[in-house]
Amino acid sequence: MHGAAESALRRTRDAVEPVLRTAVETLPGRLRSIAAYHLGWEDADGTALGGIGGKLLRPGLVLAAAAAVGGSATDPAVLRSAAAVELAHNFTLLHDDVIDRDQTRRHRPTAWTVFGVENAILAGDAMLALALRLVGGAAASRLAECVIEICDGQYEDCSFEHRDDVTLDECLTMAGKKTGALLGCACALGALAVRADPLAVAALDLFGREIGMAFQLTDDLLGIWGDPAVTGKPVGADLTARKKSLPVVAALSGRSAAAGELARLYALGRDFTEHELRHATDAVERAGGRAWAATEATARITKAHAHLGRASRVELTAMHDLRAIAEMITRRTN
Amino acid sequence: MHGAAESALRRTRDAVEPVLRTAVETLPGRLRSIAAYHLGWEDADGTALGGIGGKLLRPGLVLAAAAAVGGSATDPAVLRSAAAVELAHNFTLLHDDVIDRDQTRRHRPTAWTVFGVENAILAGDAMLALALRLVGGAAASRLAECVIEICDGQYEDCSFEHRDDVTLDECLTMAGKKTGALLGCACALGALAVRADPLAVAALDLFGREIGMAFQLTDDLLGIWGDPAVTGKPVGADLTARKKSLPVVAALSGRSAAAGELARLYALGRDFTEHELRHATDAVERAGGRAWAATEATARITKAHAHLGRASRVELTAMHDLRAIAEMITRRTN
Repeated sequence: MHGAAESALRRTRDAVEPVLRTAVETLPGRLRSIAAYHLGWEDADGTALGGIGGKLLRPGLVLAAAAAVGGSATDPAVLRSAAAVELAHNFTLLHDDVIDRDQTRRHRPTAWTVFGVENAILAGDAMLALALRLVGGAAASRLAECVIEICDGQYEDCSFEHRDDVTLDECLTMAGKKTGALLGCACALGALAVRADPLAVAALDLFGREIGMAFQLTDDLLGIWGDPAVTGKPVGADLTARKKSLPVVAALSGRSAAAGELARLYALGRDFTEHELRHATDAVERAGGRAWAATEATARITKAHAHLGRASRVELTAMHDLRAIAEMITRRTN
Repeated sequence: MHGAAESALRRTRDAVEPVLRTAVETLPGRLRSIAAYHLGWEDADGTALGGIGGKLLRPGLVLAAAAAVGGSATDPAVLRSAAAVELAHNFTLLHDDVIDRDQTRRHRPTAWTVFGVENAILAGDAMLALALRLVGGAAASRLAECVIEICDGQYEDCSFEHRDDVTLDECLTMAGKKTGALLGCACALGALAVRADPLAVAALDLFGREIGMAFQLTDDLLGIWGDPAVTGKPVGADLTARKKSLPVVAALSGRSAAAGELARLYALGRDFTEHELRHATDAVERAGGRAWAATEATARITKAHAHLGRASRVELTAMHDLRAIAEMITRRTN
């Protein structure tokens, strides 16, 4: 299955990257350079780089959703939606890096560290406007609605940093907005672009939201137990930063001794020692956070498949890529 | 004439504010609060305020442009465009205040000083998405294009702060993007909303851009010679901040003794004394900056009227509000 997903994403890159590049080329001078740097196409001095960038998971969902409802994945409206979703995703990354003061993204210095906070904000604004300019009509309205939901999720995420009574339900709701919404929107836009009926669009939206939750749960597991050589993040980065990721909040919400140990470690007002970091990692696991997150991710994929069953009257073969991408999400290692 | 413009803007407020409020009410919880605070509708603790907010100049242009091409200013598409333009304008203000670290706007603490930089960025993002969601089709695409142009203008404005060889032409081009573009877009959207022909849309766009330049020139004059009791800004705020506003750059680009004095004062690496501030103000005037800006503003209004003549085949009476707003722009005192 994993190979099928990779092949779908490779086909996505071949089809969508030219549309994405043509769109970004329309941005004025320096804003174009910042976007091209952020997308991994150029170095800070404008030298072309051999397309590192992201996995194009969201454009992949747009194309696969269009195919799943019987449309063509090479329809220009589908490709424009796919490029718009990727632009909207990268607008959120640019602003989130500013907001979270993150120094590194995809193994490179973040755009704001290179071009300044002001210019990273402006380049993000321009990428959002560009995304909404690329698609018209119902799709633009749907994508704009999704962006508002993402902003709400990021707002909640920031506010959680200042609270120590965040519940697991609040975290799941926040992740649904911050991550799930755009994966749902990607699927919905793919279906909308080929004029699928509203029920199919809604079912695909729900499918995308569920795999979005599985994606976030997997991301959070990799943030604690991922192989640094593969993820590009230092060991235990999320725990070191005292991130209230889903496995951590699940662990803290239990009443075991391990939950108490984890709470005490999180309350330490200083960097962890190597021993404390191992202890915290172990405590999340003993308090059930790891098992809960893995089980929840699998349950979300199962729910996603159920939505898919109601999404379409076309043969299951057309759903192949969507299913493959869903399966890949919990099995990935970076 | 001034009275006619005020009456047009009062009618604009009555017609557009309900649409604007309904739109902002759809924003999620806290992002809605930040938008409502920024728009002058609420205090920081959510207490309703008696509609202070801006002049609604841009929505006024949308309505007047629709009427000028023979459409109805109360057409729902016109009102949505008017609300969208005001939301887009306020999105730029929210982000500009973050970028410029401005502490005060419309006599109140700026949103970022009250809600934090992160949340002001997110509320701005959500307002931009909301603006583009409100209008559909060609209007959304036109507004998105304008937002990209504004970002480019703001980018240039920031970059000018770090240079001491900025030319008057560069400043005029920047002001055209940062201020002129949205006034042009407002006129174009009004005409688009009532399905005016493309030539009329283009002529109204040019009309709006020219009065936008007159608006900026007048703003810059008020930033130096405005009455603090009326403008709400301290005396000589723009000179104190060493702003490279249009009258200053025009003054500096001359070869008179006064230009040299102004250049030396601007190069001082400390706050002006009261005497130096008076000296700098006087030097801008003696170097011709004040007269140039006033003449240029009048010339822009004349150009604007010429575009208006080519905009429409309808009777001149329908253009009354557009002409009145144009005249008001150079005569205002705040």
